[in-house]
Amino acid sequence: MFISPWIKELINLALKEDVGSGDITTGVTVPPGIISNARIIAREEGIVAGLELSGQVFMSVDEGINYKLKLADGDRVKEDDLVAEISGEAASILTAERTALNFLQHMSGIATITNEWSQLIKDYKAQLVDTRKTTPGLRHLEKYAVRVGGGRNHRHGLDSGVLIKENHIVAAGGIRAAVERAREKAPITLRVEIEVTSLEELEEAIEAGADLIMLDNMEKSQLEKAVEINKGRALLEASGNITTNRLPEVAATGVDFISCGALTHSFRALDFSLLFTNK
Amino acid sequence: MFISPWIKELINLALKEDVGSGDITTGVTVPPGIISNARIIAREEGIVAGLELSGQVFMSVDEGINYKLKLADGDRVKEDDLVAEISGEAASILTAERTALNFLQHMSGIATITNEWSQLIKDYKAQLVDTRKTTPGLRHLEKYAVRVGGGRNHRHGLDSGVLIKENHIVAAGGIRAAVERAREKAPITLRVEIEVTSLEELEEAIEAGADLIMLDNMEKSQLEKAVEINKGRALLEASGNITTNRLPEVAATGVDFISCGALTHSFRALDFSLLFTNK
Amino acid sequence: MFISPWIKELINLALKEDVGSGDITTGVTVPPGIISNARIIAREEGIVAGLELSGQVFMSVDEGINYKLKLADGDRVKEDDLVAEISGEAASILTAERTALNFLQHMSGIATITNEWSQLIKDYKAQLVDTRKTTPGLRHLEKYAVRVGGGRNHRHGLDSGVLIKENHIVAAGGIRAAVERAREKAPITLRVEIEVTSLEELEEAIEAGADLIMLDNMEKSQLEKAVEINKGRALLEASGNITTNRLPEVAATGVDFISCGALTHSFRALDFSLLFTNK
Amino acid sequence: MFISPWIKELINLALKEDVGSGDITTGVTVPPGIISNARIIAREEGIVAGLELSGQVFMSVDEGINYKLKLADGDRVKEDDLVAEISGEAASILTAERTALNFLQHMSGIATITNEWSQLIKDYKAQLVDTRKTTPGLRHLEKYAVRVGGGRNHRHGLDSGVLIKENHIVAAGGIRAAVERAREKAPITLRVEIEVTSLEELEEAIEAGADLIMLDNMEKSQLEKAVEINKGRALLEASGNITTNRLPEVAATGVDFISCGALTHSFRALDFSLLFTNK
Amino acid sequence: MFISPWIKELINLALKEDVGSGDITTGVTVPPGIISNARIIAREEGIVAGLELSGQVFMSVDEGINYKLKLADGDRVKEDDLVAEISGEAASILTAERTALNFLQHMSGIATITNEWSQLIKDYKAQLVDTRKTTPGLRHLEKYAVRVGGGRNHRHGLDSGVLIKENHIVAAGGIRAAVERAREKAPITLRVEIEVTSLEELEEAIEAGADLIMLDNMEKSQLEKAVEINKGRALLEASGNITTNRLPEVAATGVDFISCGALTHSFRALDFSLLFTNK
Amino acid sequence: MFISPWIKELINLALKEDVGSGDITTGVTVPPGIISNARIIAREEGIVAGLELSGQVFMSVDEGINYKLKLADGDRVKEDDLVAEISGEAASILTAERTALNFLQHMSGIATITNEWSQLIKDYKAQLVDTRKTTPGLRHLEKYAVRVGGGRNHRHGLDSGVLIKENHIVAAGGIRAAVERAREKAPITLRVEIEVTSLEELEEAIEAGADLIMLDNMEKSQLEKAVEINKGRALLEASGNITTNRLPEVAATGVDFISCGALTHSFRALDFSLLFTNK
Repeated sequence: MFISPWIKELINLALKEDVGSGDITTGVTVPPGIISNARIIAREEGIVAGLELSGQVFMSVDEGINYKLKLADGDRVKEDDLVAEISGEAASILTAERTALNFLQHMSGIATITNEWSQLIKDYKAQLVDTRKTTPGLRHLEKYAVRVGGGRNHRHGLDSGVLIKENHIVAAGGIRAAVERAREKAPITLRVEIEVTSLEELEEAIEAGADLIMLDNMEKSQLEKAVEINKGRALLEASGNITTNRLPEVAATGVDFISCGALTHSFRALDFSLLFTNK
Repeated sequence: MFISPWIKELINLALKEDVGSGDITTGVTVPPGIISNARIIAREEGIVAGLELSGQVFMSVDEGINYKLKLADGDRVKEDDLVAEISGEAASILTAERTALNFLQHMSGIATITNEWSQLIKDYKAQLVDTRKTTPGLRHLEKYAVRVGGGRNHRHGLDSGVLIKENHIVAAGGIRAAVERAREKAPITLRVEIEVTSLEELEEAIEAGADLIMLDNMEKSQLEKAVEINKGRALLEASGNITTNRLPEVAATGVDFISCGALTHSFRALDFSLLFTNK
Repeated sequence: MFISPWIKELINLALKEDVGSGDITTGVTVPPGIISNARIIAREEGIVAGLELSGQVFMSVDEGINYKLKLADGDRVKEDDLVAEISGEAASILTAERTALNFLQHMSGIATITNEWSQLIKDYKAQLVDTRKTTPGLRHLEKYAVRVGGGRNHRHGLDSGVLIKENHIVAAGGIRAAVERAREKAPITLRVEIEVTSLEELEEAIEAGADLIMLDNMEKSQLEKAVEINKGRALLEASGNITTNRLPEVAATGVDFISCGALTHSFRALDFSLLFTNK
Repeated sequence: MFISPWIKELINLALKEDVGSGDITTGVTVPPGIISNARIIAREEGIVAGLELSGQVFMSVDEGINYKLKLADGDRVKEDDLVAEISGEAASILTAERTALNFLQHMSGIATITNEWSQLIKDYKAQLVDTRKTTPGLRHLEKYAVRVGGGRNHRHGLDSGVLIKENHIVAAGGIRAAVERAREKAPITLRVEIEVTSLEELEEAIEAGADLIMLDNMEKSQLEKAVEINKGRALLEASGNITTNRLPEVAATGVDFISCGALTHSFRALDFSLLFTNK
Repeated sequence: MFISPWIKELINLALKEDVGSGDITTGVTVPPGIISNARIIAREEGIVAGLELSGQVFMSVDEGINYKLKLADGDRVKEDDLVAEISGEAASILTAERTALNFLQHMSGIATITNEWSQLIKDYKAQLVDTRKTTPGLRHLEKYAVRVGGGRNHRHGLDSGVLIKENHIVAAGGIRAAVERAREKAPITLRVEIEVTSLEELEEAIEAGADLIMLDNMEKSQLEKAVEINKGRALLEASGNITTNRLPEVAATGVDFISCGALTHSFRALDFSLLFTNK
Repeated sequence: MFISPWIKELINLALKEDVGSGDITTGVTVPPGIISNARIIAREEGIVAGLELSGQVFMSVDEGINYKLKLADGDRVKEDDLVAEISGEAASILTAERTALNFLQHMSGIATITNEWSQLIKDYKAQLVDTRKTTPGLRHLEKYAVRVGGGRNHRHGLDSGVLIKENHIVAAGGIRAAVERAREKAPITLRVEIEVTSLEELEEAIEAGADLIMLDNMEKSQLEKAVEINKGRALLEASGNITTNRLPEVAATGVDFISCGALTHSFRALDFSLLFTNK
């Protein structure tokens, strides 16, 4: 995982909010010079994500900390599995602990739910896709965690994808006009995607040359007809009200992608602990 | 809600990650000069939080946008309730929409779960308290949302509270020594809190002068004894394995505070939509 | 033009480097309270770009400055044409002048060369496209200026487009493998583009499902054959050694896009002056 | 070349705009662990500048990259000359390549034009000088490149030099008053420079005690008279409409400095390529 | 001393303001490659603080500089005492020198005055405490220097302590109401402090449950009565008009804390020099 | 006073360190909607500086605050003089108060000492000059305050002035060589200053063409001889061990400038209070 300037800034932001002017408790109770060993342990089953990033947090607090990964992002953990070993100044480890674990539990939570949901459709060609319904400031990490969990990314942001929605269509004067303008004006490396709510709109979108079509809130039977109408001309994405119950039946319709906001906004964090070992 | 430099930076960070170099789709389909009206609507029941902040997002994209709150943070919404009215350049509203809703859904999700859990113990003196298990970079907002939901804040970070844990105790040479050092060295405006795992440790902590004591992972019967032993000398905080099932019985033991990480790391986002209205 | 957080930061960066701790000359010679009028005048023929941004520079120095555009981005100017009128504190106008003009001359230079080159191929379907060979830190502005001049954008950066080059092909194990991995793994909103250097590679790329193919450094006759082979299956982009001499003949081959780095790295700035008027 | 915090921020800015959330193409095609060797080669004749800075870009992406300079800033290159050797993770090299080359081509372009123009006046005492007509945000680098090319710097910004222009003179109440106020009030380490447009103004400026005088848009004959009148009392700078044609004749007049904006706003980038080598 | 992101940003800020685009004098007179040794020497008696931070400044300018501490923060120095030894590029040492010494002289000045004043009350239980009257942007460092000098910290900022003043009391509807609201609403890790100006208010504050009470501008006799009335129920802080003359008599009244703004806003810098040694 | 991006960043930095996640005390005691009036009052005699900046602090916290200056920077205040009137949300005023006053007391302290010292030499031509011995991060403000107090600025930083010291001389190979290199290489808008420690060095420096010469730590008699030797050829600056006692005699020697670090590192803050008024 490339630790980009974005990520370094986010780590600094997180350390500033948690450590701020310093770890008072550690400062008054732990003298400098105590070298300790510690381990990060999973507390429940799931998929880990964010291991290198968490190591970066420890090293941002103290370059002298040694952080050894015992697993890699994407690995499945069970309760009590060893995830990483840490050694260095006890004071530094204590100071960095919470921030490092907060990244780890958040990203692993997303990887875990993405993995669970992906498994439900593993026998279909449909891929599980994320959305822009992410936590403000953490999109890079969250989309990475989706990939780690076996999902696929939709556009990163408004500047890296075209998705024509109802209001764009109205402003442009119809589906055809909107798609054509995108095909003439948008960066040439982007597919043109449009959201449709009926099979009539789908037909119009395909004919206008849309590369990718979002089928918004359609029932199973509608989705089936959409796939039939499409005949492989455009890529099809089902979206809206995706639950674990509906997921397999949506995949069974033959769509290419199923997108779901819950992966990044309504997951449970995966629980990890840092334990000092006596040596 | 005070829009501090911290918050402005977070809004900018969120806009940079979502809008980046510009909203391509809107740029190619929506001509400048179209003035629209839109409404933010709740899609499910819950407690709203982040309304002013979301308005700030719209205004950060375009100072000319008019954003009128119809409710205030802390209000309960039901499905389809009107939350805010927006008017201004259609292109600007479309560009800001997702970032604004992402803040709103996240903060309202926290306020909602905090409110639900607080209701479960409303007949007891115990207050529901958050932790430092927050989303990196969003702690200010998440702790604010906890307050909006009726919960109470534990320390903001390592620099604004003393909480002596096991490793601090070991390094300091025991509970008494650790508490005394904190009482002599920490900023004078902070209470001295210590985590204990047994009733013997509790007694020692009280005698050492701890102002606040965290009872870690104790059973109901232990908590009851702890309250009895304490006789009101220190403030008592129950922590660990707090679920909605256990919450009332923990509160019934007479502790002052019950802290819970799930409020900020494992909530469901509250669903909102932005709808353009035809005028 | 949306003044994003990115742009505001760039304006601040530019003011910090030019004004720094203050405009010493103005400070010692121009007393506060002198209200002046000034005009921005074009010194040569070309296409203007960056007018609103330049106004933003004046207002960043002094919110009280009134900046009135007399033209819009994309308009053609001739020598001595009036571009904008400014009124406010003389000291503030003098302080902001150079930074505002530096943005304007840079962006207008790009819009002008793009327009000139686009005109050379206006009778063909081929569109002139920019590259990532931009000035570090100014890519947003430069790609905007290309659009203003009538050109079209290639991907903004490595995170918003797929372009498979020789080394990617080698690492992936061939053209087919590389294209297929991109089609399975890249964000679904992106076209898959690949660079080819021969007609054999072109055929392989088309069959592998590439959406867009860069024909690298091909002669006119090769390009013609490429268009023939392609039969409209993929979009074709000619690239490499594009000069004003070769441009029409490349366009005449029937390719969809012609990309050229010179638009953003080897243009001449367009000359503007700020003149105070006596009133 | 000192890599100051300014430069580090600019590198981060450039990486954020080019790499952003990650290099998608490399991510899907190049597995981690492939170690490669690459070389940076000049594609045309000129003067190189920015070599260490470009190395810093590679190391900002991946600290493990080894970057070995084969030339130094200021060296002349011919087509196909080897400039630097790079080894490390193939993925990292690919990710950093464009940003590193963009700095290098930009700075080398400035060094090259400065060198060419300086050569034209090498037999005169006059030195070629830059201006504040630079690319916003890159002034530090551009003024450095001018020095590398054999030119000399005018003031860095408004806070590090005094240059009294027409509007300052009017506001101060005349040349004498303006110069005297600068001599009494400006930081004592700065020369006092004033711009004059006639020989009468020149005389007045010299008598008022100006250290340095800009002769604005003067013909050859006027410049000769200015040098004669001055008798070495002040330093003289010719400015305005400097072209390669006029440069020698302006230098021949005996002025001390000739300033020219084109060095930093209308140069051609110098072309470099990064080539992977098979080892 | 933990070098937090805050501190790194402050060092960068300081280097940007002092070094900016580069050290011109060193650039034109000192060739690269000269390796020198230098020493930092105290020029007067006092307590040193900021040694590691100063080393960090040198290393921020040039990672190759070797900086060896000969003393530790909190040590007493006399005139001519050796504080640190430095070796590395002469140019880098010269560039970093002033910024490094500016941190050192500032922090040592605070540690020195704090130490002097603390000594005056060393026979009493009262501890000398700082305030929020600090230099904007340097509070972290200044409060650290107070601790180094033997003083104790009051709250770091408005977000890490409760201090109810007159206007808060008026707005809340009285001392009792204000204290109760703080006890019910403020983060549970904070003591509740209130400022009182009379013994009647003191009594009311104690009964309302204040943990800490600031006795504002009280005479010696009032302070004595306050201690008597309090009977150890709350912690007592004397504040206002604290001078070296009054300090012992205030401490003698039996208060717990004496707070004083002068420690951080009206101290004298401690003088240090950097000397090159001939080797 | 121009509120540059630098200053805005410093205000944000100061608010982040003081207010952080919010003003807890005000939050729990002061309900929104209370509009108050307040006044800033001087508590002792001195020169005010930083009034507009302080107003900017209030407006950064809450744009709705009305801040009316009753005096201007540079005015003399006596105890109890009204400096500014403020009206707006009580909560906002309380939150901003300390940060605003911290800027004001710091800058006014510098203006006051500068004014006192300047008065001691007002009958001589010598001007009092500051140094680079400033508080890290606040140099812009401190040098402004020196000007407000009637002093004059030396160079802002290493990038905006030439000052050749002993180590530069050694590295360059002597005084003549060092001065000549600076005259040939440094930005043309800068005077060349050199530090000398003897009359022999002075003579050499003058002959080498130094514009400005720092006479380091010279006695009165030496300074007198220096002035005599110089015969007005260079500007002369006395430096080192400047105290109020020595100041008049140093000025009487006829030097042009007297520089003194104490102005910015060892002043006393000027005391101000903010008082709410009952309306």
